[in-house]
Amino acid sequence: MIFSSDNWSGAHPAIGESLMMHAGGYASGYGTSDLDRKVEQKFAEIFERDVAVFFVGTGTAANSLALATANRAGGVVFCHREAHVVADECGAPEFFSHGARLKPIDGPRGKMEVAGLEAEIRRFPLDNVQGGQPTAVSLTQATESGTVYSLAEIDAIAAVSKAHRLPLHMDGARFANALVSLDTTPAEMTWKRGVDLVSFGGTKNGCWCAEALVLFDRSKAQEMHFMRKRAGQLFSKSRFVSAQFDAYFAGDLWLNLARHANAMAARLAEGITASQTSRLAWQADANEVFAILKKDVAAKLRQQGAIFYDWPVPQRLDGSLAPDEGLHRLVSSFATRADEVDRFVSAC
Amino acid sequence: MIFSSDNWSGAHPAIGESLMMHAGGYASGYGTSDLDRKVEQKFAEIFERDVAVFFVGTGTAANSLALATANRAGGVVFCHREAHVVADECGAPEFFSHGARLKPIDGPRGKMEVAGLEAEIRRFPLDNVQGGQPTAVSLTQATESGTVYSLAEIDAIAAVSKAHRLPLHMDGARFANALVSLDTTPAEMTWKRGVDLVSFGGTKNGCWCAEALVLFDRSKAQEMHFMRKRAGQLFSKSRFVSAQFDAYFAGDLWLNLARHANAMAARLAEGITASQTSRLAWQADANEVFAILKKDVAAKLRQQGAIFYDWPVPQRLDGSLAPDEGLHRLVSSFATRADEVDRFVSAC
Amino acid sequence: MIFSSDNWSGAHPAIGESLMMHAGGYASGYGTSDLDRKVEQKFAEIFERDVAVFFVGTGTAANSLALATANRAGGVVFCHREAHVVADECGAPEFFSHGARLKPIDGPRGKMEVAGLEAEIRRFPLDNVQGGQPTAVSLTQATESGTVYSLAEIDAIAAVSKAHRLPLHMDGARFANALVSLDTTPAEMTWKRGVDLVSFGGTKNGCWCAEALVLFDRSKAQEMHFMRKRAGQLFSKSRFVSAQFDAYFAGDLWLNLARHANAMAARLAEGITASQTSRLAWQADANEVFAILKKDVAAKLRQQGAIFYDWPVPQRLDGSLAPDEGLHRLVSSFATRADEVDRFVSAC
Amino acid sequence: MIFSSDNWSGAHPAIGESLMMHAGGYASGYGTSDLDRKVEQKFAEIFERDVAVFFVGTGTAANSLALATANRAGGVVFCHREAHVVADECGAPEFFSHGARLKPIDGPRGKMEVAGLEAEIRRFPLDNVQGGQPTAVSLTQATESGTVYSLAEIDAIAAVSKAHRLPLHMDGARFANALVSLDTTPAEMTWKRGVDLVSFGGTKNGCWCAEALVLFDRSKAQEMHFMRKRAGQLFSKSRFVSAQFDAYFAGDLWLNLARHANAMAARLAEGITASQTSRLAWQADANEVFAILKKDVAAKLRQQGAIFYDWPVPQRLDGSLAPDEGLHRLVSSFATRADEVDRFVSAC
Repeated sequence: MIFSSDNWSGAHPAIGESLMMHAGGYASGYGTSDLDRKVEQKFAEIFERDVAVFFVGTGTAANSLALATANRAGGVVFCHREAHVVADECGAPEFFSHGARLKPIDGPRGKMEVAGLEAEIRRFPLDNVQGGQPTAVSLTQATESGTVYSLAEIDAIAAVSKAHRLPLHMDGARFANALVSLDTTPAEMTWKRGVDLVSFGGTKNGCWCAEALVLFDRSKAQEMHFMRKRAGQLFSKSRFVSAQFDAYFAGDLWLNLARHANAMAARLAEGITASQTSRLAWQADANEVFAILKKDVAAKLRQQGAIFYDWPVPQRLDGSLAPDEGLHRLVSSFATRADEVDRFVSAC
Repeated sequence: MIFSSDNWSGAHPAIGESLMMHAGGYASGYGTSDLDRKVEQKFAEIFERDVAVFFVGTGTAANSLALATANRAGGVVFCHREAHVVADECGAPEFFSHGARLKPIDGPRGKMEVAGLEAEIRRFPLDNVQGGQPTAVSLTQATESGTVYSLAEIDAIAAVSKAHRLPLHMDGARFANALVSLDTTPAEMTWKRGVDLVSFGGTKNGCWCAEALVLFDRSKAQEMHFMRKRAGQLFSKSRFVSAQFDAYFAGDLWLNLARHANAMAARLAEGITASQTSRLAWQADANEVFAILKKDVAAKLRQQGAIFYDWPVPQRLDGSLAPDEGLHRLVSSFATRADEVDRFVSAC
Repeated sequence: MIFSSDNWSGAHPAIGESLMMHAGGYASGYGTSDLDRKVEQKFAEIFERDVAVFFVGTGTAANSLALATANRAGGVVFCHREAHVVADECGAPEFFSHGARLKPIDGPRGKMEVAGLEAEIRRFPLDNVQGGQPTAVSLTQATESGTVYSLAEIDAIAAVSKAHRLPLHMDGARFANALVSLDTTPAEMTWKRGVDLVSFGGTKNGCWCAEALVLFDRSKAQEMHFMRKRAGQLFSKSRFVSAQFDAYFAGDLWLNLARHANAMAARLAEGITASQTSRLAWQADANEVFAILKKDVAAKLRQQGAIFYDWPVPQRLDGSLAPDEGLHRLVSSFATRADEVDRFVSAC
Repeated sequence: MIFSSDNWSGAHPAIGESLMMHAGGYASGYGTSDLDRKVEQKFAEIFERDVAVFFVGTGTAANSLALATANRAGGVVFCHREAHVVADECGAPEFFSHGARLKPIDGPRGKMEVAGLEAEIRRFPLDNVQGGQPTAVSLTQATESGTVYSLAEIDAIAAVSKAHRLPLHMDGARFANALVSLDTTPAEMTWKRGVDLVSFGGTKNGCWCAEALVLFDRSKAQEMHFMRKRAGQLFSKSRFVSAQFDAYFAGDLWLNLARHANAMAARLAEGITASQTSRLAWQADANEVFAILKKDVAAKLRQQGAIFYDWPVPQRLDGSLAPDEGLHRLVSSFATRADEVDRFVSAC
């Protein structure tokens, strides 16, 4: 009953086997091997267009490098108040972009409200040098709240970004979970909507360590080669990443793993909804469930070995929890088993 | 006959097997798993003292974070003219330390001359704000020229560093190769000599991606936790690194792999010395051989499938090469086979 | 009727005369002249203790260098939501401290609420590397809202800062205006309360360009010499700043100028309060008056030549303005004349 | 007999008078006053074309902001080994450009050798991400050695810069001295030769504090507004700079002051050449004389009140000084008097 985070799981066996298969022999390093090329080509197929792909070590690195491409003096990046880039990356985006600022935008369930985004951007007119200047918009898909932006919602955010000539970044640490939740294609969820850069995460969905920064605008690629190297993110034995992605994409493994994780979350959500004592804080779109549990229920579950985090109660839910209730985040992954879920639910 | 670089090899089978063995099950992330703890303890045993260990993704990251610990405004770091930090890291140390400068020190065969180091440090007196201020000294062990600093040579550099109150960093991308070359212990080669920080590399010696920054001064550790995270170098599934190191250290695998690589380099060096047409540019101490080959010999070897790099001729060798000769670097690794070496030598 | 900003005034004649007097002859540069020394000594007298003084060109530079002394990776600085450092310096503090973050604290009339400050600091526990780490607290005296922290209020903020071992910075762009408003001494308003660093502004109060960063902890001074130079803020002909400060302090000119500016603001406030159509948004403690004017009154005043800024209505005043009213900022300075004030008031 | 530096002089009386004249009355701040506009227009006239002008506080700031416009990851700026940007600015250019590297180029008498420049640039091919990438070339006019690049020499450096698509920056801390030395026009010495950015210094030539960054490419101007503000270099009472420049340009004061300073240096050089014991180290083109004095002569001069610096002997002069000789720098300024020079010479 481990629902603490999808990164508590190890790696899917197919990922490890691919590493074993590619462990022998010689291959040129620093992203120039045949396997690197093959996987980059696979990204192009998946996104149905030419893309520039940069393997990096962490989602934080992918996000930070992405936001640094749009760097300008006094730059301001707009993102949701609870976005990983602003809440959980120890100032990495600010560091990579030499002091850019992240401006939190409000909105329920982890999604930026379009009107609020528009209003905040307008607070930084280009003729007011004191305030700084807007440089980018970043959305998380799926969000930190386990929700997923619909295609129409992405359209609306992209429209605001484009109106202000700001590049639109998608933090896709849980890209696959969002994709299968929407039952759409990578192209439809990204560049066809106006997304310019994607942090494409494989780690949370069954890889050891496989993250990629995907640029739809190749004109930024030359500079990114230097930016990645300067950030200490260019791996010498880069095939150790490409070997993971090679297995990840083969036979739609990535989609299947995400479907499984989402299904486990849905099973959890259904069970909680049906329970006597517990309820959902809001609907779960992907592989994260936010549940309101009685304190004694949470304690009992933990005694039985369940691991999950307490979660801060968002302002908009203030007053809707009873004194004996708490908010909790429950995350499923490719490795979550139905029996774990069922044991958890039966104790709710 | 692949002698291009030790990072053209994949991973030793034991490294892959360890990853497979640790792929299943749940473990807490971000460097907090039991395996992470076990490996950190192993580092303490190897170095015969308490150490703070930080896994990172690349040697560039380890070096840059190490040098950034000593960051001050207008900081100047002293290193050999051909050191990786100044020649091959795309300004990463400067970026991580917000604009510090790397001051190249001369010296034959990749080793800083102590008198030159002392003289350069003295050029930055603390009462001359225009010039900037010294912040650290960095040496590479084994060097970029395939040589190894003797313990006495490290003593001499440490004495200069200490006299100027500068921390001493060791870039140990090829730590194991140097260690077995000197037939000494990690403690003797580092902190007992006055080294304060070590970039401890596993990647070039049989791992996929296993680098660690080792701090002997724990008072820097708290800040390094934040520095590493901010640099996008804190892996969520950190056991994918610790699983590699676990196998790397087990049964002295790391020392055995380094001994093999060095032995292959020695075999290559002997063969070249004994050949009719070729010769060593200087003695090889570890796993890199610098050879002067006739141009037609080099061409013939490449036709037969040998891969190796041309190398710029150092100023001190000017005039010692004939017009039909070239300088080349030949690198062996854990994966180099004796028959590869012998085929190469027989064509010299 | 110029009430746009105190920096629309030029320089007090005594400042210009001092520059003329010191224009001839030779003097050593870069802060080492006899006059520089004399003025530094004067700062020590004013603050009744040993201080380290660094002349810089702008308040933004003083603030940014001050906050950069406390720089750490993932650093978070706490300040009021409307503080100059976060609202009007184009990301300079973030740039100078390599990506630190400024965390806005709420509070009415430009003053941080102590409970809110405490709560926000607690949101960054040192064992959560993802969130970053607190590095400093900054308060503005007088505030951007024309109010002044009482000594007791500074005590309360200092207590929170000290409890979390955070240095406390005072942005004193309007230091003199606050000082005479409280009728206290520089020592009482700063280090006796627990303030560690002061941005001491002279420009808004009658100088051309005279700002100083004052450090009460000399152990930071050595590094600050390098930080200032690296920031391009070390003036070669530094006596052009010290000559201004020399006249500024002579015969308590600085206090007299500030008293005049505050008196003009008080006269303005009284007149507005007594008017038929206009009122104060809140009480004015120093040289800035925030007034609610009828739109037609504001238009009429501007037709008559008055210059002043519209001001965004703070959230807490929402609904308290009639549709035909607007909020405006009116700033007086050493140069404001009573007849200007009276003409303004008579039109209200 | 003060020949230590041209910044030991104060300000020319006309500069002070202009400040006095503009001290009264109100004017809008932050570079938007009528006087600011007038002076900017004057720059356009002087350079015979549209230019973007940014007042800043120091030459270090102008240089650093100039070089930061061309910033890219792993950037390398090429300049003479003794250039102010690399030798005397405490890493400011590196700080402003987030870690760019300055690559020293050799050449006699403070001037880069074109062949050496070309060779160094070629060492950073764009397909070698490890090495970093060239971003700009910077030349100093007049140089740190008191020499002046001829128009043909600037042409040659510009040709190399353009061939590699690198912007060419001119550090004009002594712009006027070089200009009158060449008896040419600002346009001929800069953009007509291919110079893209100029640090235009007034401080060393009779101003208190008047430096301007001049951009010939307006497309960089929008970003520079933010860069300057973020660097704490946007003065609120900007007319205190424009008032200086206004007087500086009026009636060709700037050219007359530079002619005087150069004439005093020439008088010094002639006197030394004609002396029994002393000689020039090399020819003086502008207002700096490098002289080889007998040690007892130097001591005697200092006893008589002369102030001047010892200077490190460049490698190319090694062996050309007798044991009882030393190299010294003698700088004249607008304030140097002929009788000072004559007294000095008579003691040589």
